[in-house]
Amino acid sequence: MAEPSRIPLDRLPTPCLLLDEARLHANVAGMRAHLEGLGVTLRPHLKTAKSLDVARIAMASPSGPATVSTLLEAEYFAAGGVRDMIYAVGIAPAKLPRVAAIRAGGADLAVILDSLEQADAVAEHARASGDAVPVLIEVDADGHRSGVAPGDRDTLAAIGRRLAAGGAALRGVLLHAGDSYALSDPAALTAAAEAERVAAVTAADALRAAGLPCPVVSVGSTPTARFARDLTGITEVRAGVFMLGDLFQAGVGSVAVEDIALSVLATVIGHQRTKGWIVVDAGWMALSRDRGTARQAVDQGYGLVCDMAGRPYPDLIVRDANQEHGILALRSGSGAALPDLAVGAQVRILPNHACATGAQHDRYHILDEEGRVAAVWPRINGW
Amino acid sequence: MAEPSRIPLDRLPTPCLLLDEARLHANVAGMRAHLEGLGVTLRPHLKTAKSLDVARIAMASPSGPATVSTLLEAEYFAAGGVRDMIYAVGIAPAKLPRVAAIRAGGADLAVILDSLEQADAVAEHARASGDAVPVLIEVDADGHRSGVAPGDRDTLAAIGRRLAAGGAALRGVLLHAGDSYALSDPAALTAAAEAERVAAVTAADALRAAGLPCPVVSVGSTPTARFARDLTGITEVRAGVFMLGDLFQAGVGSVAVEDIALSVLATVIGHQRTKGWIVVDAGWMALSRDRGTARQAVDQGYGLVCDMAGRPYPDLIVRDANQEHGILALRSGSGAALPDLAVGAQVRILPNHACATGAQHDRYHILDEEGRVAAVWPRINGW
Repeated sequence: MAEPSRIPLDRLPTPCLLLDEARLHANVAGMRAHLEGLGVTLRPHLKTAKSLDVARIAMASPSGPATVSTLLEAEYFAAGGVRDMIYAVGIAPAKLPRVAAIRAGGADLAVILDSLEQADAVAEHARASGDAVPVLIEVDADGHRSGVAPGDRDTLAAIGRRLAAGGAALRGVLLHAGDSYALSDPAALTAAAEAERVAAVTAADALRAAGLPCPVVSVGSTPTARFARDLTGITEVRAGVFMLGDLFQAGVGSVAVEDIALSVLATVIGHQRTKGWIVVDAGWMALSRDRGTARQAVDQGYGLVCDMAGRPYPDLIVRDANQEHGILALRSGSGAALPDLAVGAQVRILPNHACATGAQHDRYHILDEEGRVAAVWPRINGW
Repeated sequence: MAEPSRIPLDRLPTPCLLLDEARLHANVAGMRAHLEGLGVTLRPHLKTAKSLDVARIAMASPSGPATVSTLLEAEYFAAGGVRDMIYAVGIAPAKLPRVAAIRAGGADLAVILDSLEQADAVAEHARASGDAVPVLIEVDADGHRSGVAPGDRDTLAAIGRRLAAGGAALRGVLLHAGDSYALSDPAALTAAAEAERVAAVTAADALRAAGLPCPVVSVGSTPTARFARDLTGITEVRAGVFMLGDLFQAGVGSVAVEDIALSVLATVIGHQRTKGWIVVDAGWMALSRDRGTARQAVDQGYGLVCDMAGRPYPDLIVRDANQEHGILALRSGSGAALPDLAVGAQVRILPNHACATGAQHDRYHILDEEGRVAAVWPRINGW
């Protein structure tokens, strides 16, 4: 007999976000074992899940370590007992008072930066406040975004010296190999992980050669974490999407479709039978506007459609989406049969991008092994 | 002297959402005058703004009429005094108890549908509850999504009869010419508006010819509302984006860039000077993943970058975006100079799509004529 507190999935109002707890645990265990084998610490990125319940599963201990992408996340997780965090977006000087308040509450929150101007601002803040704010210098792994070039020894050393002069604590270097998202060949992904490692070690060596400390050498992305074969010289790996998984990472090869823990529950609200369309009440507002798989070998539209047990229907994707409408249709050229889904039937849609889809929702409905809702976990959004 | 309660814009934490109140009022006044000239009522779609404060400016009276896209919107606006609403997404039978609860609270909430199955479910609900739920039959204006074909007189009449048999109230027909979003030529837009009108009148005539009532003939989209020249036979127009405006609608020609009332405030957090990149703290989480302008003549990237007074910098767009990083760069081939924006400088970014960008935020910071923050208006998300 079902426990009375467990709600059958088909009673949930739609659209809503589902999280398969067993898959989440397995994804975390897999990544942790992989990184332990390589001798490095996992510092999970909490920007994907933005949930204290998920964080406690992903982190090595209730106090961390962890990575965050906004100061609101830092405040939320600090209030939940997380004590070791990196705010992994380049610091704006105006945000330092908020960083200081989080640190004053007892959390060891580090910031990152990649310029002398930022280093001066942090040094001035440390001097004025007496708080030795820990800093990682962001290093550019592959040209995709921010960071000092790993071979720019002069800039790395100059930033380190200015931080030290003001009393800030130079803690190390941080990289994110974001270009790995464009890959799908395992050998190329392993090469990207190795390039990230070499860039990190090169930058760390530059600091040490200048007589500066570099205890932390932090790299990370779900693809490079998954495909790294050697992390000599690295102390920690940051990754976040791997916990939940998504179709984009499946296209890269970092996760299997069967491991994706996140889905959106939707209800059929109509048909255009001559066109082979099934219309559901999950549009881009519930799925997000993310179309990252459009650039991959398999374009998943706005998501891959599954039955209530989470098994994909052959070739059925969300072909188009309006704000509150998703149009389900078979892939072009498919010989599969359109499933017979009447008005009121429910489906589960795997997302292109867990970070983007999650952000459209304020809670997870946690699925147990029998597909019932065992709990509701809140998640945060905003800054 | 500045009033003490008005905050200078550059004191706001970033990223955050700004709303220019004067532009909002002007956009509403312009659409209202245009539709009054055509002899129809404006039933503003509140899915774009999702704010009671904005709704009260857009609606003819504090009690409506209005259009909503979720039952959470219906509940929120009903609690705020709105009494006349259409939930303009095809009804799922499982949602009828929630519709009934909103109606029992005193709001005249109508639903839409386009199938006999849905009509039977609503009729059964009306029979069982004694509540004559008002229904509009959704008609397919242009093949873009849901709806009965306007010439399918048999299906229209059959739906109407089944509703009437159960005691539901057939209120009329509803169309949305979504394909107009793909246009940009004024003559083609006027033709799309006329096609929407003809489809609506055709469907309404089919109901009346079958001896069924059709007091409401409801059409709408921002492009067709703007370009309609004759709305004979139409009773009301639904449109929502026009209030706030966005770059996509500017590409269509429905609004001018100078009229866009919504922007995202962001702070410069770094540079990649050799590449001509300025990195800001507004990524796709703050701007949304919407890349609708990629299909238009002018691709605005993830948004058009403006100075603090809201004037666009020549050719400066958000060329790429990560979750919390926006990369500002000049358009390809531009001869403009990259503005000198130091770390800590702020910019305002006009969004591709007001509905999508707004949904990433939980409040509007309301700008007065001097560019100070006069108020904070909450907005809702979710279902």
